[in-house]
Amino acid sequence: MGVRVALVQINPTVGDLTGNAILIAEAADDAARLGARLIVLPEMALTGYPIEDLAQRPSFQRGVSQSLQALAQELATRGVGGCAVIVGGLGRAPSGAPTNTATVVRHGTLEAVYVKHRLPNYGVFDEYRLFEPGTKPVIVDVDGARVGVAICEDIWTDGPQGPVAQLTAHGGVDLLAVLNGSPFEVGKAAARHTLAATAATALDAPVVYVNLVGGQDDLVFDGGSFVVSRLGQVVAEAGRFHTQTLLADGDERGRRIVEMSDEEQLYRAVVLGTRDYAHKNGFTSAIVGLSGGIDSALVGTIATDALGRGNVVGVWMPSAYSSAHSREDAADVAARCGIDYRVHPIGPMVEAFDAALGLTGVAAENIQARVRGQVLMGISNMEGHLVLATGNKSELATGYSTIYGDAVGGFAPLKDLVKTRVWALARWRNARAAQLGETEPIPANSIAKEPSAELRPGQLDRQSLPDYAVLDAVLDRYIEHASSRQDLLAAGFPADAVAVALAATDRSEWKRRQYPPGPKVTSLAFGRDRRLPITNRWVEL
Amino acid sequence: MGVRVALVQINPTVGDLTGNAILIAEAADDAARLGARLIVLPEMALTGYPIEDLAQRPSFQRGVSQSLQALAQELATRGVGGCAVIVGGLGRAPSGAPTNTATVVRHGTLEAVYVKHRLPNYGVFDEYRLFEPGTKPVIVDVDGARVGVAICEDIWTDGPQGPVAQLTAHGGVDLLAVLNGSPFEVGKAAARHTLAATAATALDAPVVYVNLVGGQDDLVFDGGSFVVSRLGQVVAEAGRFHTQTLLADGDERGRRIVEMSDEEQLYRAVVLGTRDYAHKNGFTSAIVGLSGGIDSALVGTIATDALGRGNVVGVWMPSAYSSAHSREDAADVAARCGIDYRVHPIGPMVEAFDAALGLTGVAAENIQARVRGQVLMGISNMEGHLVLATGNKSELATGYSTIYGDAVGGFAPLKDLVKTRVWALARWRNARAAQLGETEPIPANSIAKEPSAELRPGQLDRQSLPDYAVLDAVLDRYIEHASSRQDLLAAGFPADAVAVALAATDRSEWKRRQYPPGPKVTSLAFGRDRRLPITNRWVEL
Repeated sequence: MGVRVALVQINPTVGDLTGNAILIAEAADDAARLGARLIVLPEMALTGYPIEDLAQRPSFQRGVSQSLQALAQELATRGVGGCAVIVGGLGRAPSGAPTNTATVVRHGTLEAVYVKHRLPNYGVFDEYRLFEPGTKPVIVDVDGARVGVAICEDIWTDGPQGPVAQLTAHGGVDLLAVLNGSPFEVGKAAARHTLAATAATALDAPVVYVNLVGGQDDLVFDGGSFVVSRLGQVVAEAGRFHTQTLLADGDERGRRIVEMSDEEQLYRAVVLGTRDYAHKNGFTSAIVGLSGGIDSALVGTIATDALGRGNVVGVWMPSAYSSAHSREDAADVAARCGIDYRVHPIGPMVEAFDAALGLTGVAAENIQARVRGQVLMGISNMEGHLVLATGNKSELATGYSTIYGDAVGGFAPLKDLVKTRVWALARWRNARAAQLGETEPIPANSIAKEPSAELRPGQLDRQSLPDYAVLDAVLDRYIEHASSRQDLLAAGFPADAVAVALAATDRSEWKRRQYPPGPKVTSLAFGRDRRLPITNRWVEL
Repeated sequence: MGVRVALVQINPTVGDLTGNAILIAEAADDAARLGARLIVLPEMALTGYPIEDLAQRPSFQRGVSQSLQALAQELATRGVGGCAVIVGGLGRAPSGAPTNTATVVRHGTLEAVYVKHRLPNYGVFDEYRLFEPGTKPVIVDVDGARVGVAICEDIWTDGPQGPVAQLTAHGGVDLLAVLNGSPFEVGKAAARHTLAATAATALDAPVVYVNLVGGQDDLVFDGGSFVVSRLGQVVAEAGRFHTQTLLADGDERGRRIVEMSDEEQLYRAVVLGTRDYAHKNGFTSAIVGLSGGIDSALVGTIATDALGRGNVVGVWMPSAYSSAHSREDAADVAARCGIDYRVHPIGPMVEAFDAALGLTGVAAENIQARVRGQVLMGISNMEGHLVLATGNKSELATGYSTIYGDAVGGFAPLKDLVKTRVWALARWRNARAAQLGETEPIPANSIAKEPSAELRPGQLDRQSLPDYAVLDAVLDRYIEHASSRQDLLAAGFPADAVAVALAATDRSEWKRRQYPPGPKVTSLAFGRDRRLPITNRWVEL
């Protein structure tokens, strides 16, 4: 492409205009020193992404405008002025409506503003709510090369009238820069490569695809910025799940990109989402209830990888129904992770409730889980740790959890991972440790033993739920692929398992609404990705 | 207008296709017997509204299609066949995408389908996410009269190219039927009258405006269906907050519509929202923690009005810091309402936690609130009552509540009412009782006394929060009108009150995410009406 380009995948924080501008200025400065002439930031890098209804606050709009002007000055002061720096941010249409923009900053001025044409309004996205779409192309000259600009969805829903075709109609480009805020989903990297390759071949020009990195509430941005050649081959790729500046000159040769395993992608995504939720919200430490089971063992390990072993507290809270192996396994995971381990028996509190209320059955089971939730919240209130909920997607779907009990927490790392994936990630994490010669963090017994909530004698998950292999397959089809009951029966799933899974999922929406956020890692997570009424008498046909 | 029209404001339940079809058939049958020739139902009456992502499930789409066919047959069988019945529901565009439709059913057939042109995608609405817009007008002949069809937003965002102008371009109409799913906001009725009057004068034809009634999660539909003459005068109006069929012949004379007071509208909306949330989700009874304060006294009264005095349990849960007047006032409101009253001292449970964890400060305060939440949930689990949270909008804004404590519940009646409105509604409800010669439900002392959480000796709300009159005025401007800090200071609010209110609101988003739903009654409620990130470092300028 004849121009040295820097793909700058940074990790901004929503609303932190000053902090984000510093990240941008420093990265641009470094890139310019390494000879970059075109420096491309991700979508809405200046504001963080997604900003949701902040887009519509006039005071925020003014703040962004001032920050962008200040950034242009800062870049000029630092000697980056001669480079074209393309910064994602928030603009205003002539109507006054907010816009999702890419501003070309050069020589201390805002040289051109591209407004995102295609606004995603499905899944987790609400961009019709927030932004007015743009209609005009932007092509800037960088040392004689014509550089076109696009933003994320612009290359996902293109077509004959689309932003890419428009560039061709305006004389074509020598390079297309695409600014992205593309949330992680397992397996999505290949789709991005394909889309960029389609744009590259349509334009007969290389494409640089720059993505955000970092966690933002329920989203994880995985980076993985890349360059495709005019022939549509990926010729360079930045790392995933960490910040990086990738430099490309256009003479790179096609190479085979080695995709991470699903388990590695998922694990890294959840660690990054947990770390950034904590740090960006002012927490340096986390607390997790360790039961000896697989979910809490994995959450304890994730917390350790996210925050460091000195910043995690594990608490075992035994009851009369806790087994000997639970005690051993809870202590074992804490020892393996090297975290602060504490024991708080819940008997006295549970007995006080039982004496006052005479609880039996599910009410008596719930009180145990709720006392545990209170213990974690009490310690959190005293010591300032982020409470991590340990529920997985299978439990969240079926409501197999106690609201205000094991559901308490500020963040839920496993929220979008079904139980069979929890096991797979635990195995992967242990295998990775073994590969590196480190201690395997997760006790083999926590992986091997049969799941139990241990809220009554002899309780096992399978007394209430179908086998997890069946349940998870049904949930995947019902939730992520909108299969009907008839579809599921036709696919050969047992009628009783289908009936239990669907009825439990439908009646648990109220519990999910009060569940903490957790990282979306699949194509359809619970939360804003799947918006269903609580009051809903529809029964799947 | 020369045709007898029935405006049928029913209360459907989302997803209950069979039940809703029965409501429609019975109401249409009654209207036909009373001579109606045109019978108009509200927006999405067959499916309930809003159905959110249910719109996109193929199995649900098929279910709606089958129900509509069956309804057409049922209407013909009942002898309603000769009437034109306009039913709101869910259709499919040629592209396969779902549509928000009004189907004209007559003689057992689906004679015409109007597709909503204008899709609201702001506030609580996500219709771009769900539906493909229509482009064509529908005009049906009813005994020689030309009847045009529109759906809700079609008359809110009309303009020269809009659905109403289109009807004029197609030869005009003798009557416009507008199907609505217009959620309650205090004072909104006048806006609807104005819009319908604008359409009527533009068309030189009367307009019948038919609205849903009932609660659906966080929305309340208030009915209030009406007819405006070709001159734009409201000439007939159905009741609000209850189901009704209004018959109109077009020879009604203009009359002055007496709008309910704000307090009456708000109170009735919250009662209806609470009743329908309970009943539509299978609850016949509710439980509320009575503290002796104004919030819980009002919630107890609302629950009694919503569900009946035999179906409400009030629980006083005293601690060492509970005052003598709290005991008297809690017992008093229960006696005045005539509900089941119980006392559960929390001392033993709180002492068990304190002994185990050694809690102090805010952690010790929170444990009291959390023990109370557990007591209510325990009784609910044993007896099946819906737990009502008592928090108001001022508390929800500032985070002045204990998560998993006083925030527990399935529904929060006061969620969108600031504290000063809570007092106003309590006074209104007592005045109404006095007017009717009934017992005033709310103890005068609960209204008069200074607010306190009573979680430590001598605690008062004003030690943590600005005076509620100031706080509520600041919150109204900051939240509902997007005022900046500078705007608020320029308006003369004290700097310290503004600082406390804004900082507290900004840092409490995480708590609001886990709060139960409650009825939206203002122009901007917390929840899907106001979508802000939790992770958000923006500080208002």
